[in-house]
Amino acid sequence: MPENDLLIVYTSKNGRTGAMVDPISHGIKAAGASVLIRTVEEVDWEDMLSAKGVIVGTPVRFGDVDWQVKRLFDITAFQDYPGPLSGKVGGAFTGGGLPGSGAELALLSMLHILLNHGMVIQGNAHTSHYGPIGLRDFPESQVNSICEAWGRHWAELVYRLNPSV
Amino acid sequence: MPENDLLIVYTSKNGRTGAMVDPISHGIKAAGASVLIRTVEEVDWEDMLSAKGVIVGTPVRFGDVDWQVKRLFDITAFQDYPGPLSGKVGGAFTGGGLPGSGAELALLSMLHILLNHGMVIQGNAHTSHYGPIGLRDFPESQVNSICEAWGRHWAELVYRLNPSV
Amino acid sequence: MPENDLLIVYTSKNGRTGAMVDPISHGIKAAGASVLIRTVEEVDWEDMLSAKGVIVGTPVRFGDVDWQVKRLFDITAFQDYPGPLSGKVGGAFTGGGLPGSGAELALLSMLHILLNHGMVIQGNAHTSHYGPIGLRDFPESQVNSICEAWGRHWAELVYRLNPSV
Amino acid sequence: MPENDLLIVYTSKNGRTGAMVDPISHGIKAAGASVLIRTVEEVDWEDMLSAKGVIVGTPVRFGDVDWQVKRLFDITAFQDYPGPLSGKVGGAFTGGGLPGSGAELALLSMLHILLNHGMVIQGNAHTSHYGPIGLRDFPESQVNSICEAWGRHWAELVYRLNPSV
Repeated sequence: MPENDLLIVYTSKNGRTGAMVDPISHGIKAAGASVLIRTVEEVDWEDMLSAKGVIVGTPVRFGDVDWQVKRLFDITAFQDYPGPLSGKVGGAFTGGGLPGSGAELALLSMLHILLNHGMVIQGNAHTSHYGPIGLRDFPESQVNSICEAWGRHWAELVYRLNPSV
Repeated sequence: MPENDLLIVYTSKNGRTGAMVDPISHGIKAAGASVLIRTVEEVDWEDMLSAKGVIVGTPVRFGDVDWQVKRLFDITAFQDYPGPLSGKVGGAFTGGGLPGSGAELALLSMLHILLNHGMVIQGNAHTSHYGPIGLRDFPESQVNSICEAWGRHWAELVYRLNPSV
Repeated sequence: MPENDLLIVYTSKNGRTGAMVDPISHGIKAAGASVLIRTVEEVDWEDMLSAKGVIVGTPVRFGDVDWQVKRLFDITAFQDYPGPLSGKVGGAFTGGGLPGSGAELALLSMLHILLNHGMVIQGNAHTSHYGPIGLRDFPESQVNSICEAWGRHWAELVYRLNPSV
Repeated sequence: MPENDLLIVYTSKNGRTGAMVDPISHGIKAAGASVLIRTVEEVDWEDMLSAKGVIVGTPVRFGDVDWQVKRLFDITAFQDYPGPLSGKVGGAFTGGGLPGSGAELALLSMLHILLNHGMVIQGNAHTSHYGPIGLRDFPESQVNSICEAWGRHWAELVYRLNPSV
């Protein structure tokens, strides 16, 4: 199994979350790190174990993560818990509707799940603080540049935590 | 379809959440209200539509609701959204492990879902503020009396919101 | 002390939260209810006790409520706690910056405080789900219409909970 | 100004949060790291800037951080924002009452503030997931051992992020 710096696992409802995958992985690669991309249906436990960090993309579903993302963690990632994901980098991004439609809550619910696994997460003082958020009427170019900045930021955290990389 | 004052939908992982159903429904009935009890596998959309309030019980799963509870709302309760559950009473309860194992976060994630549906929720200044929580090493009798108080409290909110009942 | 249906307590940082007070109170009055408006510096405990509901406006400060709003609840509203605000209507609104800058988190932190007091809150399935949010680059007219809808929605909840009003 | 690995800033209401400072700093020192301890009244901006990580202790106040802690961040830590605390380790601990009295919410509100500053936080899969929580009727020895484990865990994160230390 080739080891990857970062794994992106995602699912999309209307394409908005899926559209964030490209600019995020662009930012990761621009920082010189490798990235594996998997949908929530195709990802397996080995993909998660072999990455140095896991970034999860979920559409906003009632102010919380999508049920398929939840099932991934309740069942797949429950194997050998606690332990296997501890100390890895974690992160989240989400695509939603209007302000107040639950995007921050969905993002934070995802981060809580990653903290439960003992993962290391970070905020960003300069841009969308908890992770990239793509809202419906927000300019695509601005969302893309936030996604790229976060991809780069996550890659840098992988480097800081794994100095021999 | 007989109309019920309150519907309890729940799922349990190790029995702790399930054990809270009895004292909660006892409190509801003690206040003179009717209650229908359904597991997350057996509940249907009509049960939810015909109740004046819906109380959801979920085990703590990584600081969030169980994936089957999430699926119930992402799929079943998404029918005809927004609208059908608006203005009804909502509430939640959860069974968890140690303090800090995510019980409050799971409870609040559930309440956020109910708020997304336009439901009316309440806090309780005198006891477990956001809904009943049953932790592993906490005395069962104390959990039961919190559950009963909340059952009564929810029934009273149904009465306040539906004065002709 | 004249009794009011709703009290709006607020503070503003750059004017964005303050600008939401007018359209919200317009919606409240359009529904036939009375409203008292106070800044966080001028409100007193009697204002809070004599209203049937309290709506709090706070700017987003690091994904949480403003420290002066927090002090109001930690000190002023702590008098005779638990009890005096139980069963009243509660609500919150906030003015923030970009999506992901913490507006939903600030709003929810405020709602948690109100739930701790045993207040009754509601969501809205049709618009900003947890309360009005005014972001920097979001069209003012759209924010205003969300504020008006919520003002009306809160007044209606006061009527439902106080049928003799 | 001597540089410290970790700074603990705290305030206490009834002594429960304050009692957690000792076992946490014991865990930090056991891992070979240095720690500076300051109350929220005595800490200054230089203390925060010169540490490699900041751990904040707050009592549970209505499911949120204490207003003095909030003021520290709204005013003191707002200097030169965004930037000065970015990339440092962040963490939180809290002392509360019963399960459901808001301890997890207070802890998470504190973590959100630290994420807003771009800090790096971590969860713990094996113990109180988001940070140490001391509840009223929970055995003191168990709280102490959770505090020590977290102190050690935070020191290790400082080492991972600052390999030359």
